[in-house]
Amino acid sequence: MRIAVDAMGGDHAPREIVAGCLAAASAYPDTQLLLVGDAPALTALLPRPAPANLAVVPADGVIEMHDDPARSIRQKPDSSLVRAMQLVAAGEADGYFSAGNTGAVTAAATLRLGRIPGVARPGIATLLPVRCGHTIVCDVGACVDSKAEWIVQFAIMASLYASEVEHLPQPRVGLLSIGEEASKGDKQTKQAHEMLLEAGLNFVGNVDGKDCFRHAADVIACDGFAGNLLLKVAEGAAEFFVDLTRDAFTSSLLAKLGALLVRPALRGMKRRIDYSEYGGAFLLGVKGLVVIGHGRSNAKAVQNALRRTREGIEQRLVARLSERFAAVAPAAAGA
Amino acid sequence: MRIAVDAMGGDHAPREIVAGCLAAASAYPDTQLLLVGDAPALTALLPRPAPANLAVVPADGVIEMHDDPARSIRQKPDSSLVRAMQLVAAGEADGYFSAGNTGAVTAAATLRLGRIPGVARPGIATLLPVRCGHTIVCDVGACVDSKAEWIVQFAIMASLYASEVEHLPQPRVGLLSIGEEASKGDKQTKQAHEMLLEAGLNFVGNVDGKDCFRHAADVIACDGFAGNLLLKVAEGAAEFFVDLTRDAFTSSLLAKLGALLVRPALRGMKRRIDYSEYGGAFLLGVKGLVVIGHGRSNAKAVQNALRRTREGIEQRLVARLSERFAAVAPAAAGA
Repeated sequence: MRIAVDAMGGDHAPREIVAGCLAAASAYPDTQLLLVGDAPALTALLPRPAPANLAVVPADGVIEMHDDPARSIRQKPDSSLVRAMQLVAAGEADGYFSAGNTGAVTAAATLRLGRIPGVARPGIATLLPVRCGHTIVCDVGACVDSKAEWIVQFAIMASLYASEVEHLPQPRVGLLSIGEEASKGDKQTKQAHEMLLEAGLNFVGNVDGKDCFRHAADVIACDGFAGNLLLKVAEGAAEFFVDLTRDAFTSSLLAKLGALLVRPALRGMKRRIDYSEYGGAFLLGVKGLVVIGHGRSNAKAVQNALRRTREGIEQRLVARLSERFAAVAPAAAGA
Repeated sequence: MRIAVDAMGGDHAPREIVAGCLAAASAYPDTQLLLVGDAPALTALLPRPAPANLAVVPADGVIEMHDDPARSIRQKPDSSLVRAMQLVAAGEADGYFSAGNTGAVTAAATLRLGRIPGVARPGIATLLPVRCGHTIVCDVGACVDSKAEWIVQFAIMASLYASEVEHLPQPRVGLLSIGEEASKGDKQTKQAHEMLLEAGLNFVGNVDGKDCFRHAADVIACDGFAGNLLLKVAEGAAEFFVDLTRDAFTSSLLAKLGALLVRPALRGMKRRIDYSEYGGAFLLGVKGLVVIGHGRSNAKAVQNALRRTREGIEQRLVARLSERFAAVAPAAAGA
């Protein structure tokens, strides 16, 4: 299989992206990696000879993290982010990875690959570490101001992802809200609740912000504003907690000694909540396998994201989503 | 001053509510506490003789945490939650505290006390512990499906609260969104951003879920759905982190020994993020000083909430809000 990589996207691009690709090229010899970007810069980062399953595809220009998504993909059609997507659109790659501007990746995917028939809006599905594993949250920022039916589609897509790629039979699907009762939430959420009761999913009801971490559901569906908030607040709270712990650990000599002793145990805990272990998020609902990495992706995160991309391709995730939406009644599938 | 207390509201009512009131009665001899609820049950929890500044006011019935707010206050007009509000409405108390059903308190306050002229919707303002102190978040659940102008009103009210009660001159006001740029967010948030630029506040722009904990603003304004999500996710993430830490601390003999040594330092950290230190949240925008406690309030939380209620009364928060909204141009104050 072939994966197109936007080698210039991300805070630590191209260095960490290339390093992650080199690790993946060695770990997955059956996978062809197409590094799209500034050819001289990328070549300089590669060993000589480069691995046989890794090739550089030249591109011109970079979409920055703060560029306006729609405008930038129009104005920079030869940028690494767009060129890599073009490889998927042309059938020259089976999957795509970028740690660049999320909005631009979403816009490029929607425009160049198109939506799966029946899907109103693509959604980004990511893993949130929780007690006893993780929960898939969709959407986490591709789509704000969602209609209730779009939230239901996020639930359908993420549920299929959970069963097919994460191998969870009958994933429990929850709806992010501000209380367990069906009556709690904003207008779209309350409507989505009603619709999810009839959607043929293993719907377990509303999931409160607090209950997310108790593994109240395997899949949490939500509007992109709420989902992004969930993700970022969790990240910020974890950072805050780590800061507080560090302060506590250095507050006295005894505490410093104790910190030395607990350090190895805390390392395992850090791994549990480290985004780079999860690597990337699927953009679900477009006609191609697209994985988006964290802007801060390091080499390990890139390698894990490429593993995830491989899994999505192997499990034929896009084809399964297409079949699922072809089977959905037109009423539920409409925008 | 006199404070009416819903003695039957909260997961640990009436025991912990009464215990908190007893502590407050002793700490604030100038404050008269009116414990509203099941008289025999409350009297049984009081010492004999009871403190002179603590009286029991009989009420009949309890609004449960999961009761429908609007219906319950209609069907249980003699319940402790509603009766205590009635004392404020009748001028027999200067402030109100309940750890009961938040929706019911909001509905009872709106109905019995009425809104401050110019305020479209009351908002709940609570303290979120962050790096270097805390941030006031408003609204955290009184009002969902907010129009942009309501979010602006939450910002105005919380800013006044910050300057008058928390004594922060020129509080930095942020808008909760999913990115720093003005272009990020859902429709209402983007509109609120534009309006906040003109609102005469010390507006510092959008605050991301992650930046909340970095003390990016002293006040964060948002719709009640988003604010409640922020609060609950922060709470859930903290719980999750504590669980993980506990697991790590008991994972080996060395870790257990280390944990013993760091424990005293961690206790200070726990106090930083313990909701019971903050006690209660102000319901801003109604014609009376109303404080809502966490459902799980223990005696300490109740005492701290009563301290907060006293501060609100002393600082004439309701009068200052009324003056502020009387001064606001009709366009900004309208619903």
